Amino acid sequence: MDQVVYNLYAAKLRDYFEARHVVYSILPLPTTEENKSMELVMKILDEVHKFSLDRRGEPIIAIGGGVCLDIVGLAASLYRRRTPYIRVPTTLLSYVDASVGAKTGVNFASCKNKLGSYVPPVATFLDRSFFQTISRRQISNGLAEMLKMALMKHGELFELLETHGPFLLDTKFQSEGSGKYGGKHGKAAVTSSRMAIKSMLEELAPNLWEDELNRLVDFGHLISPELEMEVLPTLLHGEAVNIDMSYMVYVSRERGLLTEDDKLRIIGCMEGLELPVWHPDFTMEMVNRSFQNRLKHSGGLARMPLPISLGRADIFNDTTDEVLCKAFKKWCDELGTSSKTLI
Amino acid sequence: MDQVVYNLYAAKLRDYFEARHVVYSILPLPTTEENKSMELVMKILDEVHKFSLDRRGEPIIAIGGGVCLDIVGLAASLYRRRTPYIRVPTTLLSYVDASVGAKTGVNFASCKNKLGSYVPPVATFLDRSFFQTISRRQISNGLAEMLKMALMKHGELFELLETHGPFLLDTKFQSEGSGKYGGKHGKAAVTSSRMAIKSMLEELAPNLWEDELNRLVDFGHLISPELEMEVLPTLLHGEAVNIDMSYMVYVSRERGLLTEDDKLRIIGCMEGLELPVWHPDFTMEMVNRSFQNRLKHSGGLARMPLPISLGRADIFNDTTDEVLCKAFKKWCDELGTSSKTLI
Ligand SMILES: NC(=O)c1ccc[n+]([C@@H]2O[C@H](COP(=O)([O-])OP(=O)(O)OC[C@H]3O[C@@H](n4cnc5c(N)ncnc54)[C@H](O)[C@@H]3O)[C@@H](O)[C@H]2O)c1
Ligand SMILES: NC(=O)c1ccc[n+]([C@@H]2O[C@H](COP(=O)([O-])OP(=O)(O)OC[C@H]3O[C@@H](n4cnc5c(N)ncnc54)[C@H](O)[C@@H]3O)[C@@H](O)[C@H]2O)c1
Ligand SMILES: [Zn+2]
Ligand SMILES: [Zn+2]
Repeated sequence: MDQVVYNLYAAKLRDYFEARHVVYSILPLPTTEENKSMELVMKILDEVHKFSLDRRGEPIIAIGGGVCLDIVGLAASLYRRRTPYIRVPTTLLSYVDASVGAKTGVNFASCKNKLGSYVPPVATFLDRSFFQTISRRQISNGLAEMLKMALMKHGELFELLETHGPFLLDTKFQSEGSGKYGGKHGKAAVTSSRMAIKSMLEELAPNLWEDELNRLVDFGHLISPELEMEVLPTLLHGEAVNIDMSYMVYVSRERGLLTEDDKLRIIGCMEGLELPVWHPDFTMEMVNRSFQNRLKHSGGLARMPLPISLGRADIFNDTTDEVLCKAFKKWCDELGTSSKTLI
Repeated sequence: MDQVVYNLYAAKLRDYFEARHVVYSILPLPTTEENKSMELVMKILDEVHKFSLDRRGEPIIAIGGGVCLDIVGLAASLYRRRTPYIRVPTTLLSYVDASVGAKTGVNFASCKNKLGSYVPPVATFLDRSFFQTISRRQISNGLAEMLKMALMKHGELFELLETHGPFLLDTKFQSEGSGKYGGKHGKAAVTSSRMAIKSMLEELAPNLWEDELNRLVDFGHLISPELEMEVLPTLLHGEAVNIDMSYMVYVSRERGLLTEDDKLRIIGCMEGLELPVWHPDFTMEMVNRSFQNRLKHSGGLARMPLPISLGRADIFNDTTDEVLCKAFKKWCDELGTSSKTLI
């Protein structure tokens, strides 16, 4: 269990287990991005071993943000070559993203998620009430991954985020469509989070081991991993993803795939979700480096997901260096803060 | 590459790669059972990372005994969540056993193969010429796993081992059925090793993730893991397995499943393969402890494979403590060296 979540919810959890006479042991973990390493995995394994877990019947339960789910998932997948585990995401980002799919992982040699496994949890328990205690910035962070799915394949979800984004931020997804937060926002919290998870599942389920390299879910994830690791811990994952997406929207526009109006609506929506749309450390050199890496690990093709309208996208392999450069320039001109002096 | 194998074969390997202009890097590893740990896995990962491997197209090749194949396989399965790897077994034991199946692993908290993954290699290259440089004892060691498959499901293989066992030991499986080692032993080396691998494949392929708990391949592996770890490094894996099998033959006989004649033929065959059939540290307490553990990790059932004739077996859940004790006593009386004083 994430240490922060432990401080907030351990008492409730103990009550729950004790009322049901469950034999359990809670291990609070300092699951920060900086600690997302094999060392922490080994510490978890020590404790799991001491607990003398029966790997057939007794699951490990990971309760926390995406870092906690990824680390504990890897530990579970290694113990006795595969011990069942359950994911309980407690941040919006992990709720809509790390909750789904088979990936576990830790950072290695300064590279994000370089080590890991593809072992799905036996179950994921989704409970939005955990979001009550996360910050507004962390809600924005999760909204970025929701926006990714919206832009790639769900026009309706895009409109929900565009219209109700600020409300979702204010209410931390606690509204049910009636009572305290009812009214004109309807079921925006339930509907938008379900739509995001459902679209994510549609993309991941047929490609659990990532054998298919053409992936819409990679949108926003081509350059952001490098940016995120470089400025660690300045940017949250979703923030880095959003900066990447914002640039890609300009690439799409430069290629003539998106209208100027759609581009402006997307950037406007991002701002409504209080997400950064530009960063001084996101340089043209970083773009080029990330592309070289991408080509290397993607069988020689860029496989770049780009939006072609609001809620529709395609994979492209033929974006020229010229387009990348022109888009970058325009992106900096229009969105960069004091871009003139920084670039 | 196993350090010992490296010393013997590195020059040949370099010639091979260089003639084909392969970009490669050889990492000699101290892959002993004592070093079979996550630490060594991490060292391999450091090197793999430095080599800047393309996980889609460039496989990691593990060349060595079962320890090397298991460790390197685990490293490969973790790197970028799954990097293709190839197994090149260089001992008889790893040739007939670790070559097949999806299991990788390392020891942890003094428990054998407690951590690992189920990730099959993309290929296994089988080359018996490596056995020229392994000791006679290591050949015996591998013969134990072949005998396991023979007793469980292959009467013909049992007869081959019974008749040609000493010849196979003398010639280290180098005979081809003609030339230097031709004559009355025919194709015993080729045929017996193929039969063993084929039977192993039949058992493992439909049960790659070991969801099925009733496994004939567990024969000889119920008590031996504890024995092997306890007396480390006194007994080789196959030797510990053989001691376990020898005891189980007595259990089978005690239950009336095997005739006295079959029992004697099996023990005789084991002796012909120069395998130990008894050990003073294999105690009744160890039997009981192992059974308790087995029940715990096998869904409450013993799932004990026992031979019911030469080459046929079944799984039993109803062996009484009394039978286990009586068989143990007879086993010690008939096979134990100075058993009277030791028990
Ligand atoms: N496996 C996958 O498919 C997948 C998908 C997306 C992201 N991820 C990984 O997830 C990580 C990011 O996840 P994250 O954004 O949840 O970060 P995180 O796990 O670091 O959590 C963010 C912060 O919120 C705190 N926190 C968590 N729940 C809380 C709660 N209910 N109340 C108060 N504080 C709480 C945490 O202690 C932490 O400080 C990255 O490492 C990323 O690689 C994995
Ligand atoms: N993954 C599986 O399915 C599986 C199956 C069976 C066994 N195993 C594992 O395999 C291990 C046992 O394998 P092993 O018996 O091969 O032991 P090993 O790997 O320790 O090799 C035995 C010895 O032979 C040396 N050696 C290897 N090849 C040689 C050659 N050609 N010439 C000279 N020396 C050579 C090694 O350096 C070592 O000292 C155990 O750890 C066991 O858990 C795994
Ligand atoms: Zn992401
Ligand atoms: Zn074995």
